[in-house]
Amino acid sequence: MVYFDSAATSVPFDCAVDAAKDILNIYGNPSSVHTAGINAKKALESARKDVAAALYVKPQEVVFTGCGSESNNQAIFGLAKLRARRSKRIITTDSEHPSVSAPIAALEAEGWEIVKIPTRGGELDLAALESALALGAAFVAVMQVNNETGAKYDIAAVRKAIDKSGCGALLHCDAVQGFLKTQDLKEIAKNCDTASISAHKIGGFKGVGALYIKSGIKLPAFIKGGGQESGFRSGTENLLGIAAFASACKAYNNDIRNHISNLYGYLCEKLSAIPEVALNIPKNHCDNILLISALGVRSEVMLNALSAEGVCISAGSACSARKGVTHAMAAYGLDKPHLESALRISIGAHNTTTDCDILAEKLAQAIKRLKR
Amino acid sequence: MVYFDSAATSVPFDCAVDAAKDILNIYGNPSSVHTAGINAKKALESARKDVAAALYVKPQEVVFTGCGSESNNQAIFGLAKLRARRSKRIITTDSEHPSVSAPIAALEAEGWEIVKIPTRGGELDLAALESALALGAAFVAVMQVNNETGAKYDIAAVRKAIDKSGCGALLHCDAVQGFLKTQDLKEIAKNCDTASISAHKIGGFKGVGALYIKSGIKLPAFIKGGGQESGFRSGTENLLGIAAFASACKAYNNDIRNHISNLYGYLCEKLSAIPEVALNIPKNHCDNILLISALGVRSEVMLNALSAEGVCISAGSACSARKGVTHAMAAYGLDKPHLESALRISIGAHNTTTDCDILAEKLAQAIKRLKR
Repeated sequence: MVYFDSAATSVPFDCAVDAAKDILNIYGNPSSVHTAGINAKKALESARKDVAAALYVKPQEVVFTGCGSESNNQAIFGLAKLRARRSKRIITTDSEHPSVSAPIAALEAEGWEIVKIPTRGGELDLAALESALALGAAFVAVMQVNNETGAKYDIAAVRKAIDKSGCGALLHCDAVQGFLKTQDLKEIAKNCDTASISAHKIGGFKGVGALYIKSGIKLPAFIKGGGQESGFRSGTENLLGIAAFASACKAYNNDIRNHISNLYGYLCEKLSAIPEVALNIPKNHCDNILLISALGVRSEVMLNALSAEGVCISAGSACSARKGVTHAMAAYGLDKPHLESALRISIGAHNTTTDCDILAEKLAQAIKRLKR
Repeated sequence: MVYFDSAATSVPFDCAVDAAKDILNIYGNPSSVHTAGINAKKALESARKDVAAALYVKPQEVVFTGCGSESNNQAIFGLAKLRARRSKRIITTDSEHPSVSAPIAALEAEGWEIVKIPTRGGELDLAALESALALGAAFVAVMQVNNETGAKYDIAAVRKAIDKSGCGALLHCDAVQGFLKTQDLKEIAKNCDTASISAHKIGGFKGVGALYIKSGIKLPAFIKGGGQESGFRSGTENLLGIAAFASACKAYNNDIRNHISNLYGYLCEKLSAIPEVALNIPKNHCDNILLISALGVRSEVMLNALSAEGVCISAGSACSARKGVTHAMAAYGLDKPHLESALRISIGAHNTTTDCDILAEKLAQAIKRLKR
């Protein structure tokens, strides 16, 4: 199988699997105060240090959650509760992940005013952002890397615009796709008040995420109960998933980033040799996600054809796969022919140039066969 | 190490570990529509069938979550939202787990009226419940087995009282401690509208739970986003944890229940031979949790002494371990000497009579050494 869908979920790193196996010997509950519990707590806090180091934040600013979606829900609903007295206005973009846009839509139904900044061509419209900020906001929610287009939004510029406006809005960033993949690894720590990350996008397992909460931000608990995670998130911690997450964070280095960048360049060259293929590349982008259009073949037809040949790519985010919704691509500004034939190729650490060769070959063959 | 704290978290079953190892080959995202995704989806739905079978409910009535606490939060907040127009009154007990009592306290702060039924001696006060129901309620939340005392509350009687009252209240049950451990395995399916369970209490891993939602109950999503889990819970599913959960569900059989019951009887006999030990046994109880008092030695002193000898027990729930709160024990009606020296012994499938012998011996020695 040639797997080019790491933005949906990545192949777990060997080191993450090993870390999970090791942690099976530490079966205590981190909240228990006996030896088994203390060992589990130590493993948990050691993992927290590793994840915090990867984000360039303090360990106590990292809260483990059940997934990136939970992190985003906690941030959006929590910031709204925290800031409702200052403003009932939220500024976001028109291309956020559903786990950001759905909570925001729920707040809109409760009477909040929502302003969506356009991201045409994968560029955050900073003039529109500045105008929106002039009217104030409780918080701003902008993703770091778009999950469908690979567009890299300028989080530092968002921070600058907020500061310039003087409106005091907090900044949440859905960094699930960008974490460890962008060039400035300190961008989140330097600019955000809260940020979401997820293990299974970086070589860890599905079912564990984290929320960065800057010191001093008294974000309400989303899951209430036993008071785990310093009261920010109740529920027994997923120690196995967290240990694997930490291991993947430590392993995800420049070599991997360079490897993926090289494959991105290689793949772009290969694919641009196919006449029907259009590369939809935002000026600022992250090299792990490549959005193309195989003009003349509908996305789902191509997807199935390639899947039958053992090649896995996607037609958008996994979260919208079954619904056929690709709102980020529409926001990007693809016209109908490009939109209907859009394919997302996302590169992982496990991929090789041979994988790229196979993908390009199978794609070219399928286009010949299927083009209307 | 002699581990008698399975109510905090259980030693994972070998079969659960094997199931997790197997699933590592299926790394796709269940929401992806290519081969890797379809394989993941199949594994997910197969696991759902197994968990549903253990609960005697339909697969489509099982929603996977990140932990029992999340399940309880979704049920409490969801039922409140669903039923607010009928009644703003909730009936619960005075000894629920914090992941039930904390969300209910949050609703109380929002103006809901909360009625707490006493559970003195581990018996749900059915007369008090009937009186409370006479005034109506949006829903009733009663746990199946108390996590600190092992008391088994009569869920069928709660259902009967609700039906008799005609008030139309829904019934949520925190079945995290009772799942697969009580005698009537169909009690949840027969009586409840929603119920929470958790993998790591039955030989699965920490970080995965489930929520039973009876067909027709339109419980709002707690985590909003991509619409996974039939829209009831967004976020990429913890496939590894879910596969291990399903495996543990299939393995947790009558042999294990009988084994634990036998050890419970054996341990009670052993411990009652120690003069300072009082067994606090509710009339209706689940055989995996035994609450004792080692009179004359404070709980935390004993806990540490036994931990130093390699014996792990607890002084209450893991969730309250660091806070020193044991509200369920107080609700049970223990007096100060019994409360201050209370110890929770919880038996798992891995325990042996030798474990029981060691625990009894070390406990007797520690009492001699530490008694004031």
